[in-house]
Amino acid sequence: MRDMFEKGNIDENYIRVPKDELFSFIVRVLTKLGVPNADAEIVADNLVMADLRGIESHGVQRLKRYVDGILNEGINLHPDIRIVKEGPAYALIDGDEGMGQVVGYRAMKLAIEKAKESGVGIVAVRNSNHYGIAGYYALMAVEEDMIGISMTNSRPLVAPTSGIERFIGTNPIALAVPTKDKPFLLDMATSVVPIGKLEVYRRKGKPIPEGWAIDAEGNITTDVERVFNGGALLPLGGFGELFAGHKGYGLSLMVDILAGILSGGTWSKHVKNTSEKRSDVGHFFMAINTEAFLPLDEFKERMSEMIREIKSSKKHPDFEKIWIHGEKGFLTQETRLKLGIPIYRKVVDELNQIAEIVGVEKLRVGE
Amino acid sequence: MRDMFEKGNIDENYIRVPKDELFSFIVRVLTKLGVPNADAEIVADNLVMADLRGIESHGVQRLKRYVDGILNEGINLHPDIRIVKEGPAYALIDGDEGMGQVVGYRAMKLAIEKAKESGVGIVAVRNSNHYGIAGYYALMAVEEDMIGISMTNSRPLVAPTSGIERFIGTNPIALAVPTKDKPFLLDMATSVVPIGKLEVYRRKGKPIPEGWAIDAEGNITTDVERVFNGGALLPLGGFGELFAGHKGYGLSLMVDILAGILSGGTWSKHVKNTSEKRSDVGHFFMAINTEAFLPLDEFKERMSEMIREIKSSKKHPDFEKIWIHGEKGFLTQETRLKLGIPIYRKVVDELNQIAEIVGVEKLRVGE
Repeated sequence: MRDMFEKGNIDENYIRVPKDELFSFIVRVLTKLGVPNADAEIVADNLVMADLRGIESHGVQRLKRYVDGILNEGINLHPDIRIVKEGPAYALIDGDEGMGQVVGYRAMKLAIEKAKESGVGIVAVRNSNHYGIAGYYALMAVEEDMIGISMTNSRPLVAPTSGIERFIGTNPIALAVPTKDKPFLLDMATSVVPIGKLEVYRRKGKPIPEGWAIDAEGNITTDVERVFNGGALLPLGGFGELFAGHKGYGLSLMVDILAGILSGGTWSKHVKNTSEKRSDVGHFFMAINTEAFLPLDEFKERMSEMIREIKSSKKHPDFEKIWIHGEKGFLTQETRLKLGIPIYRKVVDELNQIAEIVGVEKLRVGE
Repeated sequence: MRDMFEKGNIDENYIRVPKDELFSFIVRVLTKLGVPNADAEIVADNLVMADLRGIESHGVQRLKRYVDGILNEGINLHPDIRIVKEGPAYALIDGDEGMGQVVGYRAMKLAIEKAKESGVGIVAVRNSNHYGIAGYYALMAVEEDMIGISMTNSRPLVAPTSGIERFIGTNPIALAVPTKDKPFLLDMATSVVPIGKLEVYRRKGKPIPEGWAIDAEGNITTDVERVFNGGALLPLGGFGELFAGHKGYGLSLMVDILAGILSGGTWSKHVKNTSEKRSDVGHFFMAINTEAFLPLDEFKERMSEMIREIKSSKKHPDFEKIWIHGEKGFLTQETRLKLGIPIYRKVVDELNQIAEIVGVEKLRVGE
């Protein structure tokens, strides 16, 4: 939960688990299921990063869907991840239905290699699976002092403007940029909120804010059950065009165009959940070598200067401070590296059921 | 005005002017001021496209600001548009304070050349001026059957989330993509609405919707005068984080990072109006050669199929139809090519004042 980045206290529904134990647990489940060790470590790294940064919906609680995907043979454990076409600055990859993180990691590495050589690298990917948090791949570029962009399409959950069907994905876009300090990291669903936020409200039995979602008839609703019962999420900008919902709708299509159409894969309407057979997810990665444009130090200094300026601009009295993208996540990460990652008790139970089914040691929690 | 794309009638405050006359008028004003003929034609083409597509705020009514920029020597009429650095897939351009359209046209051409050779081309630009509609450059790529992306930073008009100062730009992003039929064209300010929309409400003396802008104290206001009097626009997603205003804020920074930071130029806080001395606008262009990835016909067919599906998905009863990005603009353009472009009478008066000051023939309107 995001609001924990500066306090150590958590509510009684959570247990803190050290990062390393969470990582090991994921690796032992996946390797037991036949995932090669190096691949399992990539998936674990991605899920643990989400939990460390406070993006609970994309953390270890996703493991069940991946396990289901493996058991249902929707995920190929030994994919032939193939470069279909390439040039010095681009590539098209077929993921052969491998785990999304494994395919994504390979593809982003390739985009970075291309950018080293050519200043920029773009890689479109088809036939992959849910790849976790988009920011993970964007940050890989920052480790090489580059700008990283990562996008993925996803199963239909959002209604296009003037439509009421779940027809487009929450299709996230991530951008990571090096600075003198912590990276700038924008990692956003192109809907008002991702589906994970509604799951949190559902769990707590709370009404959702008016403007996040519609029911099956297209009415804006605060009843989360009506959304899960045939309703849909709204694109960034909300209902209709008055507050520019058509822009979020357009950004979602941008992701489908780059990750689904250009890759020769498929687009949101046809993308399936990773727990099903063949989810056919598409990704798009881009790396820009900042040094092709400016000396690295100068680039970073300019980024840090812009951030300093914005953070010291005049604040609204109702808010505590002006945040920069990624900042809350890095603070959350600092706390969690020290104190452990709070995992919802029901998720711990679910993980332990998985351990039992698969036949590995349960999650070692400190209690 | 957008709602005219399918009806021929306009209100009495407007006069229809044939596209060719509008184009000629702009060219004669600019050439008289010393702009080379070829450059004046690029600017005219850009402004007329905006008017044809119904983006009145970026059409001929902008001419005054450009003329002021030239008269104030903020615009360099004979710029040395220089490639500072380049490789087969990227370039950095210094616009030498030339007219934004002239610099932008040259830069996008270069991005397209790079993409022909390398599959992708990115060009960052510094020291330019207001470049008109972002979509113009994105569509240049479509003419070559490529995907085009165009972004520009702009003077500060938007408050960052939790802030109340005008600190970031409305920084638009455009994406154009070829299809079997008309191109897909997303062309969006990263604020809820561009400042031009508020100018229309101001002119009509109407209150603005609650959620577009704040006053000087940071309160959401419906009083457009309070916005112009020290207030600010809100980023896409609106006030605070509840409806994801931080995403619009992040997208605005993305544009500043690519167009302002990476280019070695400046960013929104420091960008000035083109009517002033040295506006220091930065742009970012990208072209993707679809044929590097897929056969062109297949790519276009896939785009058209996605669009057909979305348009035939279940519609909300309160809306007439489901639109695709760019579609309204192309319909408006069809009408206006036949009937002429409706120009606000006060704008016609202003244009004729310019004609008088500069010493060229007035706008020939059919009345």
